[in-house]
Amino acid sequence: MHDAISAAQYQVGLNIPAAVGMPEEEISTPALIIDLDAFEGNVAFLRDYCRKRGVRLRPHAKTHKSLDIAKYQMREGGAVGICCQKVSEAEVFVSGGIGDVLVSNQVVDPRQIDLLARLAAKAKMGVCVDDPGNVESLSQAAVGHGVTLSCLVEIDVGMARCGVPWGQPAVDLAHKIAAAPGLEFGGLQAYHGSAQHVLDYEGRKAAVQKAISQTAQTVKLLKAEGLKCGTVGGAGTGTYYFEAESGVFNELQCGSYIFMDAEYRRVQNAGGDLMPEFKSSLFIYTTIMSTAASQGAVCDAGLKSLTIGPGLPRVHGREDIEFVKCSDEHGQISDPLKSLRLNEKIKLVPWHCDPTCNMHDWLVGVRNGRVECLWPVSARGRVF
Amino acid sequence: MHDAISAAQYQVGLNIPAAVGMPEEEISTPALIIDLDAFEGNVAFLRDYCRKRGVRLRPHAKTHKSLDIAKYQMREGGAVGICCQKVSEAEVFVSGGIGDVLVSNQVVDPRQIDLLARLAAKAKMGVCVDDPGNVESLSQAAVGHGVTLSCLVEIDVGMARCGVPWGQPAVDLAHKIAAAPGLEFGGLQAYHGSAQHVLDYEGRKAAVQKAISQTAQTVKLLKAEGLKCGTVGGAGTGTYYFEAESGVFNELQCGSYIFMDAEYRRVQNAGGDLMPEFKSSLFIYTTIMSTAASQGAVCDAGLKSLTIGPGLPRVHGREDIEFVKCSDEHGQISDPLKSLRLNEKIKLVPWHCDPTCNMHDWLVGVRNGRVECLWPVSARGRVF
Repeated sequence: MHDAISAAQYQVGLNIPAAVGMPEEEISTPALIIDLDAFEGNVAFLRDYCRKRGVRLRPHAKTHKSLDIAKYQMREGGAVGICCQKVSEAEVFVSGGIGDVLVSNQVVDPRQIDLLARLAAKAKMGVCVDDPGNVESLSQAAVGHGVTLSCLVEIDVGMARCGVPWGQPAVDLAHKIAAAPGLEFGGLQAYHGSAQHVLDYEGRKAAVQKAISQTAQTVKLLKAEGLKCGTVGGAGTGTYYFEAESGVFNELQCGSYIFMDAEYRRVQNAGGDLMPEFKSSLFIYTTIMSTAASQGAVCDAGLKSLTIGPGLPRVHGREDIEFVKCSDEHGQISDPLKSLRLNEKIKLVPWHCDPTCNMHDWLVGVRNGRVECLWPVSARGRVF
Repeated sequence: MHDAISAAQYQVGLNIPAAVGMPEEEISTPALIIDLDAFEGNVAFLRDYCRKRGVRLRPHAKTHKSLDIAKYQMREGGAVGICCQKVSEAEVFVSGGIGDVLVSNQVVDPRQIDLLARLAAKAKMGVCVDDPGNVESLSQAAVGHGVTLSCLVEIDVGMARCGVPWGQPAVDLAHKIAAAPGLEFGGLQAYHGSAQHVLDYEGRKAAVQKAISQTAQTVKLLKAEGLKCGTVGGAGTGTYYFEAESGVFNELQCGSYIFMDAEYRRVQNAGGDLMPEFKSSLFIYTTIMSTAASQGAVCDAGLKSLTIGPGLPRVHGREDIEFVKCSDEHGQISDPLKSLRLNEKIKLVPWHCDPTCNMHDWLVGVRNGRVECLWPVSARGRVF
């Protein structure tokens, strides 16, 4: 059982789609609902996996942006802390009592650097850097606020986005951090984002092994110069087992594992199975709002309640119908047998869970067909 | 000048990215900013255009979801009322004093029908229908609340989404509405959504002329049976001149004209020009957060602050750089000359303005390089 929000708070002013205790079918749609059994199973799986391998788990809160979920991951999920992607996002979690937050990203704006330093007075704060000038700005802010910021050098291990090249450039930047007042060198950030969704197991393995090798060589160079990596962090839901068993990474930053979206569901393990260790737990609950078209039907969820990408949401538990087209407030469903009825509700597995959560104000926790809890998406819109 | 929010309210608790009076460069990013001169020019253009043609303008508030903008459109923009796409969205505008709202969509859920009827006690409310059972549900709610709902029959004029076929099926449904207690037959909704972005002028014209012809024939059939269409509504920013000059449509529902996004900027007029009557007025203001990559740079706006589609955002006022790749919190910028500096700010024209606005809590109005006003995205997340 999770903490619940009183049914008395079910009111349109807060844009809440449900009330605790309500049957699932009465939830206002479109709404984001969580199958709590599946969610808890996912959280427990990765907790136990990390414990057995002796690696730390610092789940990424950018996936859910929910203080309730972050607290659950800390309490029940084996999390040593959380990752955030933005300082304004971290602010919500620190205010809510999370004591150890890594901003797994660069922070360069003076106002955001200032906020980061202020948060470090309340919680252990880490941040990633890939620029020497940025190290100086962070140092000045830390000194100004009398705090210490842990800085991880981000290295580019194949994603070609942020990060300095692995090897000597990382060592140079680490020296600069170690010498800077108010900063401590925390280790390496080595996330290979573009490897996460390489569907083929061997292709994904090859990409990550290369990243692991580059990271290992950088750790060795750092060590030779007396720079110890407290954290060697990275990994996502698509590659966690490679990094966990590398002997190089000591902290995993998976986010999507709690929900398993449609994009991750296509990723193959060594046996060719599609990530059976994680169940789909996050759904866009949606209502059929028109059946007037001669073929198909229309549901009330579109681009303002779900994110599409190269792929579309998957209809959960139905083989006869398919989500085929998306506009701002409508989803078109192919229904060749014309089986859908007006006002019928269906569940969609989002293509990509992170930006989908960021559109919603509430997550509705459901178990055994009833609403058990309502969790605000506490850091929704926290994009600075 | 617009009403401004006091600078004292600039605080992270409300997730406000700016303060009134601040220089543009100090706005926290990513943020949605409005070039007020361009915005006001767009509003004035369509107002004057509609006045000259003698057609009513009912702008779509789903584009901006801002009560401040809706009020400005009513006060200065020639609007007779607004369109909404959802009842919970309409609730925000009715609560804020907009007295005439058309929900240009089907409303089928009992709780949402009930809310629609309650709103009709405070404002003139219209809604679209394409199902006889739905007419009965709406009638019951209207009678229950002692109100009148104006129902428009939605006809499918080429979009193949919602709507009954044009012609006799529309007449049958109109009769049912006219006979239902608590409802009045308001006319036809004939929006051709998929024609809006047909880039070629002749192709777009052909699609809309077909829709106009189908609508005209339906109006004639209705008239022959004594059913008068108070409203014949439709049109969007890509086709408004066809419907306005049709002699059939009497109400335009354009939304994006106030902002002009990158998707609409590709649409050609008869002379091959790209909608020169509307200026780009909405931008995602974003900061360069990493220049470590050997080619290009990274900005701090991604899928949580803008919507992509078949296309990507366009960099405003710069020919030498290009937005080439988007992830959740990062945008990758091709910068072959390596001209971008860390912390430099650039403006992106969003690919699609409607879902982009729906991600943000605030619109920052800018004129002459200074923040003039802060408008909450009042109906953000109102998706029910």
